[in-house]
Amino acid sequence: MYSFFTNITPVNKQFTQQLQDKIDNLNKPKGSLGKLEDLALKIGLIQQSLEPELSQPAHILFGADHGIEREGVSLSPREITWQQMKNFAVGGGGVNMFCRQHHVPLHLIDVGVDYDFEPEFLDKVCGGKAAVDNPILNRKIDYGTRNFLHEYAMTQEQFQEALEVGASEVEKCAGSGTNIISFGEMGIANTSPSSVWMYFFESIPLDKCVGAGAGLDKQGIAHKYEVLKEAVRKFVSQVGIDSATPLEAPADWTFKGGRKERNYFPEYAKEIIRWFGGFEMAATIGAMLKAAEKKMVILVDGFIMTACALAAVQIDINVFDYMIFTHVGDESGHAMMLKALGADPVLHLGLKLGEGTGALCALPIIQSAVNMINEMDNFQHANITKYF
Amino acid sequence: MYSFFTNITPVNKQFTQQLQDKIDNLNKPKGSLGKLEDLALKIGLIQQSLEPELSQPAHILFGADHGIEREGVSLSPREITWQQMKNFAVGGGGVNMFCRQHHVPLHLIDVGVDYDFEPEFLDKVCGGKAAVDNPILNRKIDYGTRNFLHEYAMTQEQFQEALEVGASEVEKCAGSGTNIISFGEMGIANTSPSSVWMYFFESIPLDKCVGAGAGLDKQGIAHKYEVLKEAVRKFVSQVGIDSATPLEAPADWTFKGGRKERNYFPEYAKEIIRWFGGFEMAATIGAMLKAAEKKMVILVDGFIMTACALAAVQIDINVFDYMIFTHVGDESGHAMMLKALGADPVLHLGLKLGEGTGALCALPIIQSAVNMINEMDNFQHANITKYF
Repeated sequence: MYSFFTNITPVNKQFTQQLQDKIDNLNKPKGSLGKLEDLALKIGLIQQSLEPELSQPAHILFGADHGIEREGVSLSPREITWQQMKNFAVGGGGVNMFCRQHHVPLHLIDVGVDYDFEPEFLDKVCGGKAAVDNPILNRKIDYGTRNFLHEYAMTQEQFQEALEVGASEVEKCAGSGTNIISFGEMGIANTSPSSVWMYFFESIPLDKCVGAGAGLDKQGIAHKYEVLKEAVRKFVSQVGIDSATPLEAPADWTFKGGRKERNYFPEYAKEIIRWFGGFEMAATIGAMLKAAEKKMVILVDGFIMTACALAAVQIDINVFDYMIFTHVGDESGHAMMLKALGADPVLHLGLKLGEGTGALCALPIIQSAVNMINEMDNFQHANITKYF
Repeated sequence: MYSFFTNITPVNKQFTQQLQDKIDNLNKPKGSLGKLEDLALKIGLIQQSLEPELSQPAHILFGADHGIEREGVSLSPREITWQQMKNFAVGGGGVNMFCRQHHVPLHLIDVGVDYDFEPEFLDKVCGGKAAVDNPILNRKIDYGTRNFLHEYAMTQEQFQEALEVGASEVEKCAGSGTNIISFGEMGIANTSPSSVWMYFFESIPLDKCVGAGAGLDKQGIAHKYEVLKEAVRKFVSQVGIDSATPLEAPADWTFKGGRKERNYFPEYAKEIIRWFGGFEMAATIGAMLKAAEKKMVILVDGFIMTACALAAVQIDINVFDYMIFTHVGDESGHAMMLKALGADPVLHLGLKLGEGTGALCALPIIQSAVNMINEMDNFQHANITKYF
């Protein structure tokens, strides 16, 4: 059923020494370009090249609504999803600003927004009039997912379709020469499934995974936690896949961090994804897996995108080799999530806007890393005494 | 004597509320662009504008040698200074890579390198042939400073000249429309004066201010500390300006951080700067003060540039209003130095190359902050329900 995802090859680590030697012999004290050196190594490994290149960066933003929004887990109501999608279409959002600055094309994909966009907002390939800067591609699977407090958010067919939509959008970018890609999301209430995935996939007590989203107060967070706890119980009792992790952390619980091994069989992980996930999240997972298959550099940023990365890793752990974690924001749990993944993010800017803005913001830094390995003369060439 | 530095006006903080209101009403949850919002506020205050703009960014790199290098305080010998200056001139350094990437002109100024550059490396305005990408401007004050273990590194006249060279280079940039400027340095052994300034200007025990520079081992650091301690004693006994801070931290010493008030009369601070400082550092101080007078945004990065910022603040505390601290690196003490200044740096990339690379690396992020305040539609315009 998911056969097109099985072609992700882990990067060949045997190339590491050759790359590291080149980086160490650039005209600078060893290690003096810090994270840029780590990034250059990572990208060199992905491309298996001593002269890696970034080509045609692209940003895909999937939008969808969530059944769980009906439970009052989010401060903003679902209408914000379509309003913001239209705002992105006309160029007024944060994501637009970063895309313009860094000359990155923005692909807006409706995979499940609870709204019928007017023809002027829609791409011509789906019968729209495309009268805005960034027309929305209509790949709507449904008008939002079902409510995961009671049932699977998606049917098997819907889940499969969301994965495929994501993968096919990445295929298109690959056809245009893209080898570095980032993702964003718009989906009111999507911190809820993210928290649950964090609980299941990182073995962190659920109460430590629940945060304020876009501005919940203490009472709101407590309510969100109760809803998620109940939903997890329903899932476990109905589907029979349990987590070994308690829902509530014991009083003496401390977070240890460090990369966790995969806890689930991929088929179990898919059940967890399908019960709780949003269409935009499943599409992102499909897109990440396809991007890894295409040996693209995958830029991952905030809480929701990192949750999707976690889920993608559960399906195929090799996808991790292709991921760069670009930003740690303020969303409660995101820093923990990254630590549990063993990821050291590029930026710490306190962004919590979503839309993939953290990834776009990191793009020039990632470009610097690639420039470094290609442009910095080595000591021999520069005739500089190598004392350091 | 320093009359041209007295025109720095503090930014008018009364404008803060108006700026903050604009930022809060942009189309995003309040505070969701984290540090970008802080940066936009800072730049808006500097320019006293709701529509700040960055114009003609420029990077000035001053190079000079240090008498203290003769004491073996640095792993690299002084010839690296001229070799690297030539390397920058032909475009092979880290600083060149960042300047190219961000389209920032690089101004190389020799204020005291212990070497006579060949005519092809020198700018035509100083009689050179300018046969390289970035010709060096010859503003040499001497072939390096004197050895501060024994005497003032600079004479009064030399100090004055270095300040003026720095200021005049900034004047030139201002004439070309530059309103955002960054600085770099090349000067083997210049972490030594930086550590001493940190001790005097931030009241941190000297042993906590001394680090590895470009790769000293434990023994090397111990030797460096002994040399600096002796130099401080000599200065105190000869000049009579003491620090209330012990040279060695007591066993129970902990760093508290937080912005310190100025400890010295400006004339005392100048004595400290002149005894220990390098020509490239004094030039940077003059440049920073002039840039603040011109109401430029000043980008400060690593250990040495931050030490120059500290020194500039001692001369005129109002210069601080114009500074953005762009990066915290790995150099021992830099993070402490920034905390003592009350500065929250933009990037944490572990860079320790010098040359002002951290500032250049942060430039697109600072541009993002300015784009944010100018380009992100507000809620009213975007017809988005303001729930968050």
